[in-house]
Amino acid sequence: MKLKNDLFLRAARGEATERPPVWLMRQAGRILPQYRALRASLSGFKELVSTPDLAAEVTVQPIDELDVDAAIIFSDILVIPEALGLDYNMVEKVGPRFPETIKSAADVDKLRPAAAAHQELGYVYDALTATKKLLDNRVPLIGFAGAPWTIFAYMVEGGGSKTFSKARRMLYQEPVMAHRLLQKIAEATAGYLKQKVAHGADLIQLFDSWAGVLPPALYQEFSLPYINLIIQELSGEVPVTVFAKDAHHAIAPLSKTSASVIGLDWCADPNEVRQLVGNERVLQGNLDPCQLYAKPEEVAAATRAMLERFGSHHIANLGHGVYPDTPLEGVKAFVGAVKNFNY
Amino acid sequence: MKLKNDLFLRAARGEATERPPVWLMRQAGRILPQYRALRASLSGFKELVSTPDLAAEVTVQPIDELDVDAAIIFSDILVIPEALGLDYNMVEKVGPRFPETIKSAADVDKLRPAAAAHQELGYVYDALTATKKLLDNRVPLIGFAGAPWTIFAYMVEGGGSKTFSKARRMLYQEPVMAHRLLQKIAEATAGYLKQKVAHGADLIQLFDSWAGVLPPALYQEFSLPYINLIIQELSGEVPVTVFAKDAHHAIAPLSKTSASVIGLDWCADPNEVRQLVGNERVLQGNLDPCQLYAKPEEVAAATRAMLERFGSHHIANLGHGVYPDTPLEGVKAFVGAVKNFNY
Repeated sequence: MKLKNDLFLRAARGEATERPPVWLMRQAGRILPQYRALRASLSGFKELVSTPDLAAEVTVQPIDELDVDAAIIFSDILVIPEALGLDYNMVEKVGPRFPETIKSAADVDKLRPAAAAHQELGYVYDALTATKKLLDNRVPLIGFAGAPWTIFAYMVEGGGSKTFSKARRMLYQEPVMAHRLLQKIAEATAGYLKQKVAHGADLIQLFDSWAGVLPPALYQEFSLPYINLIIQELSGEVPVTVFAKDAHHAIAPLSKTSASVIGLDWCADPNEVRQLVGNERVLQGNLDPCQLYAKPEEVAAATRAMLERFGSHHIANLGHGVYPDTPLEGVKAFVGAVKNFNY
Repeated sequence: MKLKNDLFLRAARGEATERPPVWLMRQAGRILPQYRALRASLSGFKELVSTPDLAAEVTVQPIDELDVDAAIIFSDILVIPEALGLDYNMVEKVGPRFPETIKSAADVDKLRPAAAAHQELGYVYDALTATKKLLDNRVPLIGFAGAPWTIFAYMVEGGGSKTFSKARRMLYQEPVMAHRLLQKIAEATAGYLKQKVAHGADLIQLFDSWAGVLPPALYQEFSLPYINLIIQELSGEVPVTVFAKDAHHAIAPLSKTSASVIGLDWCADPNEVRQLVGNERVLQGNLDPCQLYAKPEEVAAATRAMLERFGSHHIANLGHGVYPDTPLEGVKAFVGAVKNFNY
């Protein structure tokens, strides 16, 4: 079953393409009227994540509406802590909240074993199966997970935080315990992602959303090895993208891993990153999501300027998930500018 | 009136020193039992900021308790928006909240003129006078303000935010209005800081706490020029430190300004920054505040390692304000390790 549009996968593999492929982080979400209509009829975010047919429906909405070059399964990085036994609530306008957090070695021991955890996530695999059917080979499907450090940060901190100082504190006070928890998260995540690939994911993206709170030495010790573990476990079956948000110092070390694609946030300078990683490394990103609030012609001009700075070996995206109140015309101006671009 | 300990000022001016001076951002605060005792008797944070004798008392507490090489006036960067006419509340465990925000050009026009705004802040100048008396020339006194972009971010967003997307949105949608507001903030801040110097501040630190949400091009357009305006207005009267948190791309352009000292957050790598700005540029920072949760001997070892990486032309500090629940023994291990260090 051949993909009708495999531009995204060819670019991710480092092949030459006629133009950069384009998709948006959080493209399946509140920017789309059809998403908001469906979401209004449901009890909450988690109902949508845990109901395969609904998750599949919203995954495909941006393909229909925006004609982007890839779909990304509608899900949440926090299904992994949940599968390990740490439940969370998604609080409207606040974010995730964990009633229980990891405070001690005993808390780590109480978690479900990694090998069992990913078997809890059948509803995600079913969502992938349903999505593949709806997609009908139009575009590739991206599967994703949080990088182990980011999942660890939530499990220790109990929710979002500007500094994640409780999570960082554990790295200094209880490094052995921290490694044990990270290992468990990494193994559960690897098992989960293998299942995603078995159910049709064509590429895996790891979101290291809180990489930016770690100093370089801690990033090297507590994040990078677990990202590598996951990449090795996936053993080249599909390309892997790593997006370490706000961690400018992670770009060089990530470029030395087997990751196929390196995601960049909106504060990374494309020219400087090219100097660091070379012109052949595939990069993804990184327009400022706030740029899409500008007039459509300004969005298009800024998008073209960004594409020129990256050159080839680039997957066009924003430098962060698209903000929920972004005007649809701004999103379409971004996608349109990429699709009209030629190397 | 000669300072008994002028190590901090000599280092800030780029002179050779026998060891690095040391102080901590937020050293006057909850880490000290004497601060917590005083704070418990008051109605709130703002009472402390606006009562000169109390502000002076807590400013001097860390000199008595920790024997650091500089005092920093106890105050808040948000006194500037307040003086401009935009009141805020400091909500316990949440942070600042502005009931009204800047949404339109009319909102900018309604603000108090810059020249009048800094005259509203007599209580800060009185706090400096009272502090100088209590300090009795033991150590220099640091005055501070938010960098204009950071103040702008609060005035538009209305409070803290992970992304400050409303504030950034205005830069794309209403750049002319944004520049007008930034100019007003910068002029009010310059006037305010001149008064601080007139009342005894020996060095000025600008906190660009939200520099990290700006992509490099926007930082160059909307933050840096207003920092330069303030430095020029102070016309070399006292050294100026600029701390652009999380904005790794700001370090090189800041090193080309007339700022005397560049502050670094805990994610900056001292060796890489030295490569960028040279060995003669005075740098301040940057131990991870979470390092202070470790055992005292580990804190001391990590501090020494940091000092060695910076070499001379360095002012020892953390890479962020000390966290309120940091054990005092960790803080003392940090200060002690610097004071026992010799180049």
